[in-house]
Amino acid sequence: MRTATGRSCGQPAPIPAAAVTGTAEQSRARSAPAMKPNFSLRLRVFNLNCWAWEEPAAPRLTPGPSSSDVRRVENSSNHLLVPSVPRGIPYLSKHRADRMKRLGDFLNVESFDLALLEEVWSEQDFQYLRQKLLPTYPAAHYFRSGIIGSGLCVFSKHPIQEFTQHVYTLNGYPYMVHHGDWFSGKAVGLLVFHLSGLVLNAYVTHLHAEYNRQKDIYLAHRVAQAWELAHFIHHTSKKADMVLLCGDLNLHPKDLGFRLLKEWTGLHDAYLETQDFKGSEEGCTMVPENCYVNQQELELFPCGIRIDYVLYKAVSGFCISCKTLKTTTGHDPHSGTPLSDHEALMATLCVRHSPPQHNPSPTHGPVERSPLISVLREACTELDLGVAQARWWATFASYVIGLGLLFLAVLSALVAEGGIREIAILLWTLSVGLVLGVGAVYLFHLQEAKGLCRARAELQHVLGRAREAQNLGPEFKPALFLEHQEGYRTEDQ
Amino acid sequence: MRTATGRSCGQPAPIPAAAVTGTAEQSRARSAPAMKPNFSLRLRVFNLNCWAWEEPAAPRLTPGPSSSDVRRVENSSNHLLVPSVPRGIPYLSKHRADRMKRLGDFLNVESFDLALLEEVWSEQDFQYLRQKLLPTYPAAHYFRSGIIGSGLCVFSKHPIQEFTQHVYTLNGYPYMVHHGDWFSGKAVGLLVFHLSGLVLNAYVTHLHAEYNRQKDIYLAHRVAQAWELAHFIHHTSKKADMVLLCGDLNLHPKDLGFRLLKEWTGLHDAYLETQDFKGSEEGCTMVPENCYVNQQELELFPCGIRIDYVLYKAVSGFCISCKTLKTTTGHDPHSGTPLSDHEALMATLCVRHSPPQHNPSPTHGPVERSPLISVLREACTELDLGVAQARWWATFASYVIGLGLLFLAVLSALVAEGGIREIAILLWTLSVGLVLGVGAVYLFHLQEAKGLCRARAELQHVLGRAREAQNLGPEFKPALFLEHQEGYRTEDQ
Repeated sequence: MRTATGRSCGQPAPIPAAAVTGTAEQSRARSAPAMKPNFSLRLRVFNLNCWAWEEPAAPRLTPGPSSSDVRRVENSSNHLLVPSVPRGIPYLSKHRADRMKRLGDFLNVESFDLALLEEVWSEQDFQYLRQKLLPTYPAAHYFRSGIIGSGLCVFSKHPIQEFTQHVYTLNGYPYMVHHGDWFSGKAVGLLVFHLSGLVLNAYVTHLHAEYNRQKDIYLAHRVAQAWELAHFIHHTSKKADMVLLCGDLNLHPKDLGFRLLKEWTGLHDAYLETQDFKGSEEGCTMVPENCYVNQQELELFPCGIRIDYVLYKAVSGFCISCKTLKTTTGHDPHSGTPLSDHEALMATLCVRHSPPQHNPSPTHGPVERSPLISVLREACTELDLGVAQARWWATFASYVIGLGLLFLAVLSALVAEGGIREIAILLWTLSVGLVLGVGAVYLFHLQEAKGLCRARAELQHVLGRAREAQNLGPEFKPALFLEHQEGYRTEDQ
Repeated sequence: MRTATGRSCGQPAPIPAAAVTGTAEQSRARSAPAMKPNFSLRLRVFNLNCWAWEEPAAPRLTPGPSSSDVRRVENSSNHLLVPSVPRGIPYLSKHRADRMKRLGDFLNVESFDLALLEEVWSEQDFQYLRQKLLPTYPAAHYFRSGIIGSGLCVFSKHPIQEFTQHVYTLNGYPYMVHHGDWFSGKAVGLLVFHLSGLVLNAYVTHLHAEYNRQKDIYLAHRVAQAWELAHFIHHTSKKADMVLLCGDLNLHPKDLGFRLLKEWTGLHDAYLETQDFKGSEEGCTMVPENCYVNQQELELFPCGIRIDYVLYKAVSGFCISCKTLKTTTGHDPHSGTPLSDHEALMATLCVRHSPPQHNPSPTHGPVERSPLISVLREACTELDLGVAQARWWATFASYVIGLGLLFLAVLSALVAEGGIREIAILLWTLSVGLVLGVGAVYLFHLQEAKGLCRARAELQHVLGRAREAQNLGPEFKPALFLEHQEGYRTEDQ
């Protein structure tokens, strides 16, 4: 248990017991200027990476695991030793149908304002949940992208006013089929809600997985994704009153990508800000107690890892605080087998009116030591390495293509001379395949280098402006640079 | 010559001669509320699809075409008969280096506020222009994407405050190598400027080309791109004071994609709105007089086609009018060989203060007859056809894979029996290649169907809300639906 106070506008205040849960209908009746000064809005949010890969050829949603299977797991005091729950089989998620059913039941009972889910890979699972949750959550949306899908979906008590999505430019490698991220079309989904006259921009996302922390070949991609996510939020939330981001970021709290996201968007981490936390040690969302977790993945982190987040901020004139944050602890919320290999996050946010004020500058302090500038520089360095790596692979592929073409010419000569024909023909066709395949790899890495260069250019531009703002002194900051924290014309508010 | 009056806020007013051209420095000094009531801002904008494909193995930028070559073209009174200008060779753009040089000279002389260019495929060309234009246009940006690049770039007199880009989800087919659009990573680029205290969001884009108007296999992709473009502008311009969109849309004025874009964003077409137009007949931007234009492409349109645009709107509290619009007419602006196979657009926009007012509703009128609803329905139908087509191709590919695997099994048996070994081995390896290739095609069309479904879902959601707003009557429109025209809380302005 941990208690902390913190508000996105830096103004702690008691939260009234009689909280308002707004609807779009109410929002039409009440316009923002007519809002009472003691107005408050309570928002209950649920987030879970559902780990719902579809088993091949498994009957959909109905039978699931046999009840005896589930019972055996439920009765065991030590899940790690239960033999009936297979682990370590990649890309198969066990007891999916049963877990989806229990998730639906739980969401119906709890009646959150907003449930944001990741890794719902099958649209049938989404449709099943949609039917099940319809009375409690009349609004729902599934974000389609890539070949498999984005896995992102949302269920809401309140009408969704608008939605859109942004698919990340870089998302792993198509030839790393066993990792599969490239095929899923990872994205960020945006949903706009009008609650009690306020505009809420809710984002849900899932970044590229980390398969090997010691030698992470996807690091540059994940940093680029974190930057695209931050930039997408920055550009699409300028007129929102509140911003909420939930999802599986596959980033630890001290990772570069997470720091970059927080520094650039000004989002607050519900776990660090909440007044009342209940749940797993250090807020971890993948814990060894969870029977579905591959223990090898947690070898370096015996307590578990925190990679799923609820982040929020008030853009202007409002103040958000996280009243409570709960996580599951390796079990079903009502005990029993867990809902997923990740832990669920349940946050209660309180939104209140607040007089307009300038946030402390994120670029405050000596130029080279300010957190934003330092994290932007670090990200640029990481992307530089990524660009170099991508170019190395493109160059390597071009050499292989050259050698392949030479080999093809030699083989053609051999076949023409009537030499070792069978082997030559076999090798010739294999070489054609190799040249075409490596050609595709070459083009892919060219594209990768372009994508990384694009992210780096955006970062360098922001870095340049941050330095410029620092050098000009605090009086120039609001107009030059800080509108991403405060809105373009703060004097309008 | 054509004269018309029209303003994005519907309030015609004379434009003072002493127009203000703002800079970011000025914007820091003057905040919006302190703006004088008779304030006005003049913005001179240039747009050109540069047709700058790099000739393979051609020396870069220095020699270009021989001066005698150019002279021959310049001296000819009938460009269509000039033999020294090769036409109809796809993917080669003639006299590129010379055209780039003359474009740079022209932009330096004219000193526009903003020059937005498309089809600058080579980053070296961009760097060349950047160097050449540096004294007049200190700010510049090249949008990188895809394998070749987006081809989009911008040169500006005013500092670029922020930039980002959105790459279109759907952009043709990788196996249509001879069309090449898929490899270019078509995108929309966003640039944020602060001019005299106003926020200008300038967008530059280039949509998928139309190769066969009678049987346009890319129609669904272009409609989806137009929708993504409209949605991107909608979500990123909510706090902008002015929106400007320039580019080669590859859409005729009455095409579905263009109507969809205009209806959803509320953008105004400079050609239709301007008070003073000078240029090609009907504002065409590909004309038969241009010696670089493939005449076969204009067989159905003897006057030419209008596919490049300058579009604009004032988001709130401001009023924009297009004072003048010029196009080139198949020649260099100072006569001579043209700068590109497209015509350049040169617009002078005037921005003035305007009291807040509600625009006439785009969904006004009987439910089923309002232009927005009717265009949304039409777009949904087009995407339906696209989804059916994508699924048909995916199904067809899966049958081919099945047959290929069967063939492989038969061939393996033949090889094992020691039958016609040479041919069997050759066929076996070819079949493996075929199965893998068609597998990739299958996955591509799955992804295409998902992308089209995503756009359709967004369209259907907007359509549903538009109908709901219509049914509830005009008093509910502002809160429910019209914020995309007027900003979420117009009463704040």
